[in-house]
Amino acid sequence: MRCRKCGEKAVINMRQHRLSLCSQHFQEWLINQTKRFIEKYRMFGKEDRLLLAVSGGKDSLALWDVLWQLGYQVDGLFIHLGIDKGLGYSDRSQKFTQQFAKQRKLKLIIHDVQKTFGESVPEVTYRRRHNSQKMCAICGLVKRHVFNEIASQGGYDVLLTAHNLDDEVALLLANTLEWSLNRLARGQPILPAGAGFVRKAKPFCRFYERETAAYSLLRGIEYLREECPFSTGNKQLIYKAHLNEWEDEMPGVKLRFYINYLSALEQGAFPNTQESEEEMMLQRCPSCGQPTITGDLCAFCRLWIDDPR
Amino acid sequence: MRCRKCGEKAVINMRQHRLSLCSQHFQEWLINQTKRFIEKYRMFGKEDRLLLAVSGGKDSLALWDVLWQLGYQVDGLFIHLGIDKGLGYSDRSQKFTQQFAKQRKLKLIIHDVQKTFGESVPEVTYRRRHNSQKMCAICGLVKRHVFNEIASQGGYDVLLTAHNLDDEVALLLANTLEWSLNRLARGQPILPAGAGFVRKAKPFCRFYERETAAYSLLRGIEYLREECPFSTGNKQLIYKAHLNEWEDEMPGVKLRFYINYLSALEQGAFPNTQESEEEMMLQRCPSCGQPTITGDLCAFCRLWIDDPR
Repeated sequence: MRCRKCGEKAVINMRQHRLSLCSQHFQEWLINQTKRFIEKYRMFGKEDRLLLAVSGGKDSLALWDVLWQLGYQVDGLFIHLGIDKGLGYSDRSQKFTQQFAKQRKLKLIIHDVQKTFGESVPEVTYRRRHNSQKMCAICGLVKRHVFNEIASQGGYDVLLTAHNLDDEVALLLANTLEWSLNRLARGQPILPAGAGFVRKAKPFCRFYERETAAYSLLRGIEYLREECPFSTGNKQLIYKAHLNEWEDEMPGVKLRFYINYLSALEQGAFPNTQESEEEMMLQRCPSCGQPTITGDLCAFCRLWIDDPR
Repeated sequence: MRCRKCGEKAVINMRQHRLSLCSQHFQEWLINQTKRFIEKYRMFGKEDRLLLAVSGGKDSLALWDVLWQLGYQVDGLFIHLGIDKGLGYSDRSQKFTQQFAKQRKLKLIIHDVQKTFGESVPEVTYRRRHNSQKMCAICGLVKRHVFNEIASQGGYDVLLTAHNLDDEVALLLANTLEWSLNRLARGQPILPAGAGFVRKAKPFCRFYERETAAYSLLRGIEYLREECPFSTGNKQLIYKAHLNEWEDEMPGVKLRFYINYLSALEQGAFPNTQESEEEMMLQRCPSCGQPTITGDLCAFCRLWIDDPR
């Protein structure tokens, strides 16, 4: 297996692109493709102040590295969720992130959930007598709230996440199996700002997970390899496994599923059934001020009051 | 495991409905549910002349049996495709079908592809130098043409097929992975008549395959059990296997996938990008007279002329 660019020994073969590359050309390719996606989907420009949600895993550190090399103004935001389980999961995630930022002299904001709200994500989940399946939903709710709050207060133009194509298609498959129209209408790699939310973008949306992993390894980025200890049995992981089996049998099926979906969206599939921006603007959480459709305390703020059950 | 209706020993447990039934109550349930779907989706009435495509397999014979018991006017149409492969596949399919019709004194129309067009489905496939993957597509094309021709010429009001929920969700998954909007816009269990096509309906669309199999066994219907010898490696079979794995992990996922899709269609999820009926009406195949979008010989008629390659 030889590099298509230079004929040297290839380190990766991307069957969906029929493309094998050596270490140097693969890194160049991934950086150039990221730039291409940022421009193609009109995500942001060099003048924008970007905030990247970093977890200490391969995807977010690789994205930070790529954007830094491309010369974008990007700060990191790490949320310490208080996940330990005898493994020091959140502590170790934070260390990898801090080390990465320090090496490159990048600005990192650290937000500690327990210190700010009095309870970690597992603590609030157990107090409310939910199981670990529900913990994933609560964790997502907390992260979205904190992301949005810090991006708004810090005057950032765009909030970035490092979701890769495997993440996107697993979510797409889950939403498709439920035919959840509201969610299917909002699966683009860029969500415009509006109704109190900052713009969101996913520059890695078209890379397979193995490509972001290969990039991190080749660049010598040190990252936390384990999945969250609470993610066992998570449906997304089941869908990812099935999608990978299909990919083995039909190379490119994951990429086509995603690209054709984006094209279906452009052709007017899933007409927007969301509430209008005006309706959203009228509804603010009286406690935190973030948008909510309840007209009362938002789901995030309700987490921290005693469970009425 | 006890029958919910009478407390006798159950023969089937339908986890997606949380319903276990004995032999007698399961047969009654399946017949009543079929009647319910026919009415719910406004498929046809007692006054309509129905033509059912029968293959000699469990689904089509079970559907014929149910409709006959419900008192609908339904004739059968068997298409002899000329599939042999040393197994006499088409011959044996025909025998099971004839035996079924004779026992119930039902009218059966037999159409022999080789006798009518000079070549069987495998013969035309091989002459055109296609492989067996392509044979499935050619077979579908031939069947749709013959169904429509005989239904129109015979003055039938509705053409029925016995697709079950497993068939429908495997096709739905395939169309979703490609985000084929034209196909996704046409996945209802009823397709209205128009532009030279008779109305089509699928009364078994909400039964799992194991339910139609159980019904056939319990009713003592003799049918051909083998899959078509050319279907090996068929993508639909791969999707069916994956969907069954999901069903094991998440009972009801197949049914929800289908029901939520129908509801998404009703909510206008897929814009109609089909040509209008007027446009379709203007385009008729000069050879067979059936609708075609090519403006010249239709794909079916092109099969029987020498391959220009």
